[in-house]
Amino acid sequence: MLQVAIIGASGYTGVELTRILCNHPEFELTAATSRQYAGKPLSEVFPNLLNKTDLICENLSVDELCKRADLFFAAVPHKTAMDLVPKLLQEGKKVVDLSADYRLRDVAVYEEWYQEHSSPEFIKETAYGLPELYREQIKKARLVANPGCYPTSIVLGLAPLLQEGLIDPATIIVDSKSGATGAGRAASVGTLFCEVHDGFKAYKVGGTHRHLPEIEQELSVLNKDNVTISFTPHLLPISRGILSTSYANLTSDISEEDLRKLYLDRYDAEPFVRMVPEGTFPATQHVRGSNYCDIGFAIDKRTNRIIVVSAIDNIVKGAAGQAVHNMNLMCGIEETTGLEGAPFFP
Amino acid sequence: MLQVAIIGASGYTGVELTRILCNHPEFELTAATSRQYAGKPLSEVFPNLLNKTDLICENLSVDELCKRADLFFAAVPHKTAMDLVPKLLQEGKKVVDLSADYRLRDVAVYEEWYQEHSSPEFIKETAYGLPELYREQIKKARLVANPGCYPTSIVLGLAPLLQEGLIDPATIIVDSKSGATGAGRAASVGTLFCEVHDGFKAYKVGGTHRHLPEIEQELSVLNKDNVTISFTPHLLPISRGILSTSYANLTSDISEEDLRKLYLDRYDAEPFVRMVPEGTFPATQHVRGSNYCDIGFAIDKRTNRIIVVSAIDNIVKGAAGQAVHNMNLMCGIEETTGLEGAPFFP
Amino acid sequence: MLQVAIIGASGYTGVELTRILCNHPEFELTAATSRQYAGKPLSEVFPNLLNKTDLICENLSVDELCKRADLFFAAVPHKTAMDLVPKLLQEGKKVVDLSADYRLRDVAVYEEWYQEHSSPEFIKETAYGLPELYREQIKKARLVANPGCYPTSIVLGLAPLLQEGLIDPATIIVDSKSGATGAGRAASVGTLFCEVHDGFKAYKVGGTHRHLPEIEQELSVLNKDNVTISFTPHLLPISRGILSTSYANLTSDISEEDLRKLYLDRYDAEPFVRMVPEGTFPATQHVRGSNYCDIGFAIDKRTNRIIVVSAIDNIVKGAAGQAVHNMNLMCGIEETTGLEGAPFFP
Amino acid sequence: MLQVAIIGASGYTGVELTRILCNHPEFELTAATSRQYAGKPLSEVFPNLLNKTDLICENLSVDELCKRADLFFAAVPHKTAMDLVPKLLQEGKKVVDLSADYRLRDVAVYEEWYQEHSSPEFIKETAYGLPELYREQIKKARLVANPGCYPTSIVLGLAPLLQEGLIDPATIIVDSKSGATGAGRAASVGTLFCEVHDGFKAYKVGGTHRHLPEIEQELSVLNKDNVTISFTPHLLPISRGILSTSYANLTSDISEEDLRKLYLDRYDAEPFVRMVPEGTFPATQHVRGSNYCDIGFAIDKRTNRIIVVSAIDNIVKGAAGQAVHNMNLMCGIEETTGLEGAPFFP
Repeated sequence: MLQVAIIGASGYTGVELTRILCNHPEFELTAATSRQYAGKPLSEVFPNLLNKTDLICENLSVDELCKRADLFFAAVPHKTAMDLVPKLLQEGKKVVDLSADYRLRDVAVYEEWYQEHSSPEFIKETAYGLPELYREQIKKARLVANPGCYPTSIVLGLAPLLQEGLIDPATIIVDSKSGATGAGRAASVGTLFCEVHDGFKAYKVGGTHRHLPEIEQELSVLNKDNVTISFTPHLLPISRGILSTSYANLTSDISEEDLRKLYLDRYDAEPFVRMVPEGTFPATQHVRGSNYCDIGFAIDKRTNRIIVVSAIDNIVKGAAGQAVHNMNLMCGIEETTGLEGAPFFP
Repeated sequence: MLQVAIIGASGYTGVELTRILCNHPEFELTAATSRQYAGKPLSEVFPNLLNKTDLICENLSVDELCKRADLFFAAVPHKTAMDLVPKLLQEGKKVVDLSADYRLRDVAVYEEWYQEHSSPEFIKETAYGLPELYREQIKKARLVANPGCYPTSIVLGLAPLLQEGLIDPATIIVDSKSGATGAGRAASVGTLFCEVHDGFKAYKVGGTHRHLPEIEQELSVLNKDNVTISFTPHLLPISRGILSTSYANLTSDISEEDLRKLYLDRYDAEPFVRMVPEGTFPATQHVRGSNYCDIGFAIDKRTNRIIVVSAIDNIVKGAAGQAVHNMNLMCGIEETTGLEGAPFFP
Repeated sequence: MLQVAIIGASGYTGVELTRILCNHPEFELTAATSRQYAGKPLSEVFPNLLNKTDLICENLSVDELCKRADLFFAAVPHKTAMDLVPKLLQEGKKVVDLSADYRLRDVAVYEEWYQEHSSPEFIKETAYGLPELYREQIKKARLVANPGCYPTSIVLGLAPLLQEGLIDPATIIVDSKSGATGAGRAASVGTLFCEVHDGFKAYKVGGTHRHLPEIEQELSVLNKDNVTISFTPHLLPISRGILSTSYANLTSDISEEDLRKLYLDRYDAEPFVRMVPEGTFPATQHVRGSNYCDIGFAIDKRTNRIIVVSAIDNIVKGAAGQAVHNMNLMCGIEETTGLEGAPFFP
Repeated sequence: MLQVAIIGASGYTGVELTRILCNHPEFELTAATSRQYAGKPLSEVFPNLLNKTDLICENLSVDELCKRADLFFAAVPHKTAMDLVPKLLQEGKKVVDLSADYRLRDVAVYEEWYQEHSSPEFIKETAYGLPELYREQIKKARLVANPGCYPTSIVLGLAPLLQEGLIDPATIIVDSKSGATGAGRAASVGTLFCEVHDGFKAYKVGGTHRHLPEIEQELSVLNKDNVTISFTPHLLPISRGILSTSYANLTSDISEEDLRKLYLDRYDAEPFVRMVPEGTFPATQHVRGSNYCDIGFAIDKRTNRIIVVSAIDNIVKGAAGQAVHNMNLMCGIEETTGLEGAPFFP
């Protein structure tokens, strides 16, 4: 058994990582840190974990952490992550960082959207943890930047189109909708039950969400040229799930059948991407609790646009599940290990 | 008191019409028809109405209906409506038809998206019941076609831009999200609680929703030329509410301030359109239970696109409330009568 | 127009009071206080109120408040209320206090469950604001203690039985379920959307909820002797609504028909109590947004128990609506003024 | 691999059985029947199952079924089950019946609450499938009657108290709340999203729910004498979960500590019963998606009553999970196989 620790276990990503790891046959969860809940059993912070883990939340220094595990999931906020991760690497550890700190390859872009970067020298060796695009790099990496939830849903949905040059990148518009786990577990009025329930709203309208540079970075790689898109996030009154509806003008008159074949071929070998049957479209409730990304599309012949709909569980494929997938790859374990569960419906 | 009847009272539009009408100081609700529930008190079908109405659901012929009221809300499905409405008009009645049957001015378009039209001769005189655009026609009409819920939210959001020629109509993309009342009250597996709850999905992707020709008709009028758009509806796990996020390329480099002024001027005199404060965006929970359409926007300078967000309560401004607004106008009553209630939050 | 102020306008009771008052034909809302949001338009704190009120949240001293209004709704937490209310009364103002500070007639009981009372001399003259039981006292009072939400639903449900001596008070068990507005609008992890949504839990099990002494006080008055009950509150994943299921052993073999007659007679003249039809039971969604208390019951012949089900909207009949009802009574206004709206369904 | 079939796969129990079975290492799902969806891939009926099963829904005769599997989960309605199960047994098959048809040991009681029983001769050999009470019988049985969801939550909560004679059985009152999956997947107005969402109601008040005789049967066994209780079910606006709050008078003055010890001892060896920590109480969201029954309690010293709160996921521990648990026992497999997943939160 490989020894694994979660740094920052008291958020929604933390509890989901623990849920997955406590049934993982190759990883043993040996430490869970939380400043706020230090001293408390993790199963008291998250009573769903009762009898599944005896771990006590701890406030550990990096030195102490290094004695406790070889593999680390950093589930702390950006900034905190980049101050911590280099020390773990220097001690020879493997890290999947779930923050934004190592996702952007251009430090200048990072510093424009976030703040000064304290360890830019590690960016270059970081693998971007989207296995469908970077599987080989991930396998060799000691540091993987786990993708953002919005980027995961969007990049997987558009990748085949951009790689084949089938859409005009300048026309890409992405309308995304996320469940409330995406807003984290910090106490705030805006995410109280009564504020979110039975409602729906847009936020960060006009290209101001911090996931935007990450999305554009990856779409640009696929496009082999810079891509600038419009991206609008919305808040759904659900816990888990992101659904992204992406629009783009087609550059040729490819048929729906050929496009379907293209997608099926592209993702045929991917264990966690499912093309939904023709004429149907993804729904967040059909990926709930799983590491799947479901993708469907339609061509609007009247406007010659393609509309791609992609859905994930934002705290599984958009966070904890993808992180375990990455760690599996980094450790040479069968990549689906611990992630085989079917989605929960209803 | 003017005598009013609801034809088709047992759907969600019916119960909302009754809720509004039973407190309306100028209208007296004198009949409510329902084939399915004939003989049952309406307050048994909808227990929220207990003590608010003594009406018994009836299965009435048009002749009988005509003896009971002078004003009619036809809340029956398309097809049923067009077989019924002409007879009411011939008896000198005023009708607000909440179905799609008289919304489309081009019979050929209607017949392409629905079925053969049995009374096309009435289309010409029909006023399209969006008071913000057709107030004067509505005042004089004996038949008003109450707009669809999606079209109401979208047309109000884009009207100022199209009227001023500020956007390229060919680039309009509308991503709409609707609560489940939009799917009606018929028993079906797809709208069961467990299918909709804690989930989100797209449907009718690729330009196949029947509201599309209606939306394009009205946008074309505003644009003074044909408009073809992309429109994707989604199903939200909420009861009431539509939020539409509309994208279009700006044709000039107008500032956000000037645009805001334009919107404020355009809707200044409108009692049911609210421009939300700068930097904020509409949310369905802030219009819940009211006849308001809330509108906000942002300019994405990186792509030179405008993103307009508009929200309504789909069974009030998108159905029952707008119908009462129209009937008020048709009867020369102060137009906000019965619709003054503030939205419910939370 | 009578001038009214809300002290503590930024909670869910505050927004609901404002919603009701901004359409009230006899009251003019002249001030709304909030320390946290001082300087902000109330319609920015609660965007549903946009265009319905221009009030700016203020942080006002009692002296300043007294210049602004004659009637006050104190919607601040207990303790804060009792430090404030006496000064308002001394200036000749009328107050409906929505906190617990003047609900308990026995100071010792208050001090056991809350803290030391700073103005016990005002308790004696306070009317307990349940109009169905204390209408005449309320009419003459200058200070009304607005009942708690749980007590309102429970006392109305059991009053006819206790008044007629039909149940054994020692066997009363009340199982109550409340929506999340009952937990207030303060930021806390426990009431985040993701914690409450799609879940259900009991809390304060074993007779430890602070509404218990209030419930027992009123049941004891009705019973003309001390009553001790079991009371378990639960948290529902809804915004508005309380449903209480009350159990008690019948002391005689009264028929269901006679009991129904008793309830109907008892509440016949009450504008805000509805007995639901025989064989049906209340649901929170049927009182949503209204000042109604719906009551239904069944006799379990196998155990000779009666089960009473009562439902209210906790922030209307359980808070803001009942407060306005009380103020109407205190001011000699028709008591249903401003509260005539039918419940919202769905 | 043992070959397993699901009879009646298109309900919520069917999809959950499939979810569990498609990851079960010892069982191979070889057939899934559905009259309504015959010919359709099961993963089209339930898109969450895409890539997890290739089964096509079939309409199979018993003879055909017998060729396809050795173990059967009968997830059909009562009546249908009892016409089917005997034939499977006669062919030497093992059956877990999820209907009510073999749960009641007294045919007369069954026939009073349901209808004439067509195969009463099989009742005697049936094991009641609550492993915590009947593990040894289940191991030897060829027919197991899977308990109802309400009974499972209630019986596990009260068993230690009744077995030790600590409560007065005549005082037991159970107030239960169930998620909407309990109402099944048939199209009906009453379970539409808009009817259930954001609401809460009681139903079958007064001792008329068909689970009542089953609950009383098992409580009577534990009590070694007849028990008659009051039981009120309620409908929660959640998909999965039952929470039962049970009240009873204590017959001695046992301390909370001793009672806790009693419960802990009683359930110490049980893999699927968790006693929640002192001072905390179960919540449905903490057992979601798992086979756990969580139990907590408090003593109300003021009334000398104990209040027991128990929570399960009604379609796992209350249906599909418990059925797999039973089948594991019947087949001599490690009993937790396939059921090890931690609950999903949030």
